[in-house]
Amino acid sequence: MIHFSINKTYFLQTLNTTKRAISHKNAIPILSTVKIDVTQEGITLTGSNGQISIENFITSKEENAGLLITDTGSILLEATFFINVVSSLPDVTLDFKEIEKNQIVLTSGKSEITLKGKDSEQYPRLQDMQTENPLILETKVLKDVINETAFAASLQESRPILTGVHLVLSDNQFLKTVATDSHRLSQRKLSLEKKSDNFDVVIPSRSLREFSAVFTDDIETIEIFFSNNQILFRSENISFYTRLLEGNYPDTDRLIPIDFNTVIIFDRDRLRSAMERARILSNATQNGTVKLEVASGLVSAHVNSPEVGQVHEELEVVNLSGEDLTISFNPTYLIDALKAMDSEQVTVSFISAVRPFTLVPSEDQEEFIQLITPVRTN
Amino acid sequence: MIHFSINKTYFLQTLNTTKRAISHKNAIPILSTVKIDVTQEGITLTGSNGQISIENFITSKEENAGLLITDTGSILLEATFFINVVSSLPDVTLDFKEIEKNQIVLTSGKSEITLKGKDSEQYPRLQDMQTENPLILETKVLKDVINETAFAASLQESRPILTGVHLVLSDNQFLKTVATDSHRLSQRKLSLEKKSDNFDVVIPSRSLREFSAVFTDDIETIEIFFSNNQILFRSENISFYTRLLEGNYPDTDRLIPIDFNTVIIFDRDRLRSAMERARILSNATQNGTVKLEVASGLVSAHVNSPEVGQVHEELEVVNLSGEDLTISFNPTYLIDALKAMDSEQVTVSFISAVRPFTLVPSEDQEEFIQLITPVRTN
Repeated sequence: MIHFSINKTYFLQTLNTTKRAISHKNAIPILSTVKIDVTQEGITLTGSNGQISIENFITSKEENAGLLITDTGSILLEATFFINVVSSLPDVTLDFKEIEKNQIVLTSGKSEITLKGKDSEQYPRLQDMQTENPLILETKVLKDVINETAFAASLQESRPILTGVHLVLSDNQFLKTVATDSHRLSQRKLSLEKKSDNFDVVIPSRSLREFSAVFTDDIETIEIFFSNNQILFRSENISFYTRLLEGNYPDTDRLIPIDFNTVIIFDRDRLRSAMERARILSNATQNGTVKLEVASGLVSAHVNSPEVGQVHEELEVVNLSGEDLTISFNPTYLIDALKAMDSEQVTVSFISAVRPFTLVPSEDQEEFIQLITPVRTN
Repeated sequence: MIHFSINKTYFLQTLNTTKRAISHKNAIPILSTVKIDVTQEGITLTGSNGQISIENFITSKEENAGLLITDTGSILLEATFFINVVSSLPDVTLDFKEIEKNQIVLTSGKSEITLKGKDSEQYPRLQDMQTENPLILETKVLKDVINETAFAASLQESRPILTGVHLVLSDNQFLKTVATDSHRLSQRKLSLEKKSDNFDVVIPSRSLREFSAVFTDDIETIEIFFSNNQILFRSENISFYTRLLEGNYPDTDRLIPIDFNTVIIFDRDRLRSAMERARILSNATQNGTVKLEVASGLVSAHVNSPEVGQVHEELEVVNLSGEDLTISFNPTYLIDALKAMDSEQVTVSFISAVRPFTLVPSEDQEEFIQLITPVRTN
């Protein structure tokens, strides 16, 4: 019969991290609970939505947790509800005691709240993972890579594999990360400091977004383990499991062009605000596009909505070389691409009005490239 | 043909204030536009949703506006769209020029955006008001009164008059403000420094919430004008019109009890957090109530949800006098009432388990009272 006391704020914080894997409205009702396992060493909180699972460990050794374990056991509690109750408690410490099977009393100050739980035996078992020979990455590096690519993954389930991000390690050292929704593509390459086993996986982009929320910046490195159908990201106290997408990711290398006919270097922020202006009007047009015109050394952007009005704008460029060109595209893709870059200047390279164009940061051009497909108008 | 230039930020701020009266999805399409009238003296922006109308004046004399008027005229522009366009402009100044009838060009930096507008003749005429002999109030006083009462007005249209706030001036000096949804009531009294004409009006509570958003704290005083079916709040640059509710407001004075059998003084914040804990569980019960028990000098709160659990809590009191009592009520009403009070302590007074109980701030008891109706359980 569980009995422990703990610092309320610390407990709440850990509960909230675990809750990121818990969906309030899951088709499997038991997955709306959080599992609390108490051993002499500490407390493990588990949450899962069937796609992602998070295990959070609070050790008795962690001073900020103020954890004092009197007795051990396991219970399931409805997660949202339990977190609301805990966060409403008046005192800094919270006493958590199982008074009869699957019934707990929370005491804090003069509050006494009794909650009914469920038998922990009902909770589905998480799939075991071989935890040998991890790939070790800096959290910051992995989060940056996710920010740079995951946004380009598809949100539509028509081609499920495109809702994932493709991660490949080759030659034990070279990490390539790609996402595409078939209208745009984003690819980041990275050379690892420490060699590791090769892998080739497709991770749901939604899981990766959760990953970035769960692993905060004070966690310096992450261990990564692979199995057939899932991946485990692990730090000292957090284990984050996500299923992998099945199927072959399309060969994206052949999509990336090398030779260009028009190359323009823009100031990133200026180009982005110009595109945001264009988008306000392009949203009111039928095809939602902006037209970029390169002529006689000048670059300009145009939108013409017969209903609402027009945009005509001369774009300042840092450098311009190559042929004249007129190309139409969805400004949102360009805005998203620019958001994912942190360089001051970007190089945009075109082949023709009907071929995808590329964006690279003006420095470090080799490692990060984005592709946007134009829209044919006329 | 309109032509002016203006500071973008100042213009945007004024547009946004005007927009509070404009609904994107109005049954009368013309009301989704903002009306721009330019005279030699300045610019008037008008928005209306048929219930509330706001006129905002930007004078050429206002230095922050940087307003330079070259030519005058009137136009209607789709409000949300126009505001998005203005806020996206790159430069600090914006040039606004009508190039042909109802077509304008906005120029800012190297951006040139053309927008189609509508003929200002199509805009409905706002009802004229006699603007003589105003009631003058401090903005802060009026906003406080609104905060203290408007939340208690009904949100349901079944008795439309209860969706309003009742304002009465009697003896040219005493302002009484009341709102009730028939489950709870809030009443604030105020003695005006300067005598004024008596009035008796019911203002939609929704209009009053907009009032608080429109008249910012840097506006010190407000002039108020009444007509048969509308009221005008006016500051130097803003005119805010709202229609009044028709019908007789119920006689609420007779509802307010004077004699009590149990009187408890609570620390406001502690009572509020106890009720918030209670509410988490009471929401899971059938009648959504908390039970308050006064017995042998102790006050306690209880919720019992057979499904989810229980709350038992001893409430700290500052003072307690009178008879023992058990009373059930919706904790949300008490939480709302406590939110509207800014005193450190509140006095809660009961007659019996079936009669409404009152809350007053422990200081200044005469002027502010709230009533909550209990729920019969058993």
